Amino acid sequence: MLQLFIANKNYSSWSMRPWVLMRQAGIPFEERFVRFDEYSGGGDFSARVAGVTPVGKVPVLVDQGFAVWDSLAIAEYLDERFPERGLWPRDARGRARARSVCAEMHSGFTAVRTHCPMNIEARLPEAGRIIWRDQPGVRADMARIVAMWSGLLAEHGGPMLFGEFSIADAYYAPVCTRIRTYALPVPPEVAAYIDRVCALPGVAAWIADALAEQDFIPQDEPWRAQR
Amino acid sequence: MLQLFIANKNYSSWSMRPWVLMRQAGIPFEERFVRFDEYSGGGDFSARVAGVTPVGKVPVLVDQGFAVWDSLAIAEYLDERFPERGLWPRDARGRARARSVCAEMHSGFTAVRTHCPMNIEARLPEAGRIIWRDQPGVRADMARIVAMWSGLLAEHGGPMLFGEFSIADAYYAPVCTRIRTYALPVPPEVAAYIDRVCALPGVAAWIADALAEQDFIPQDEPWRAQR
Repeated sequence: MLQLFIANKNYSSWSMRPWVLMRQAGIPFEERFVRFDEYSGGGDFSARVAGVTPVGKVPVLVDQGFAVWDSLAIAEYLDERFPERGLWPRDARGRARARSVCAEMHSGFTAVRTHCPMNIEARLPEAGRIIWRDQPGVRADMARIVAMWSGLLAEHGGPMLFGEFSIADAYYAPVCTRIRTYALPVPPEVAAYIDRVCALPGVAAWIADALAEQDFIPQDEPWRAQR
Repeated sequence: MLQLFIANKNYSSWSMRPWVLMRQAGIPFEERFVRFDEYSGGGDFSARVAGVTPVGKVPVLVDQGFAVWDSLAIAEYLDERFPERGLWPRDARGRARARSVCAEMHSGFTAVRTHCPMNIEARLPEAGRIIWRDQPGVRADMARIVAMWSGLLAEHGGPMLFGEFSIADAYYAPVCTRIRTYALPVPPEVAAYIDRVCALPGVAAWIADALAEQDFIPQDEPWRAQR
């Protein structure tokens, strides 16, 4: 049985991506939860993750003792291991484009990631308005995300970015939750895509678990003093 | 003919990766050079790249009018298009591990990337000593890089990280040049690997072109006032 090591579902956007991918694609796995702590390197999180991977981060997929780390490498590994699931788009150019936009997410959109940390249970529209006013980088990131999603939805006709659900939708699912949390302005076709993503069974299951978590990690809460 | 859009060979580490990969693997391509300028968004660089990709960055691979951006997506595209070249390791676990370490590079090692920008022609050992003294993040990044390379070289027996040359070596080639430029301390087996990488025909050709460039981009020169 595959094992997937993840952190808090309310906060850990990188954990969310492979979890949603596997759940939505119907790939069975055992979840291993490692609670975020102080990130200092001396805590329980570090100790538990150090036993699994040299990198000290989640997510990590373990397949019969073999560790695959980083969400993008996990996605590629799953695609190779379960080729019948169509995790990437099936045509070569669609696959290439999906990899391009996932790579953009993997190394970019740093303003959104910095200023709008994932916080599924929170509703922070006032913080969102302040961020939108003060952070041109967030506005630039969102302009690119809106252009990307609108373009792909128009090109492939929806409901997902490349027609059917793919790794790309799992990759942008945490961005969908951020747009909701901070009530960032998006055009109607993008709002409708976000609704469809959040209603996918794999995403809805993650969101339900995040709401049930009821944990509070101060390092991930620049906009709240308590729950 | 494939076209690869790149920026300055002395500075552009992300351009270097797919260029070295294609050259070393013997994949023919036409180089399209776009000189770095002020990054302000209004310059010639931005205008030329905007005609090729919505992301406004290099590298970009163009295959009969179809653009693939981001070095990692380009590597995957080339691997699919030229499966006989063995760009990734041929066994599934080696391939997974190679993707994990490339993904680490793609989204990480930010301290080395920030404080030791690629500058192939420069020799900056004094700057390197200051960086090493003052930047614990650089020391931590280098500790992980040394552990990764030493471990992979021991596991696969060299000469490259996964035995034969692969995408992983192309991905870490710019780190090899940084270690040389800043004279960062590494153990002998890592120094020998760096020498082997820099002697690969594909890497040596890039370095020779970088030395011939003789350009000076102030934004990429935190340690030099002039050439």
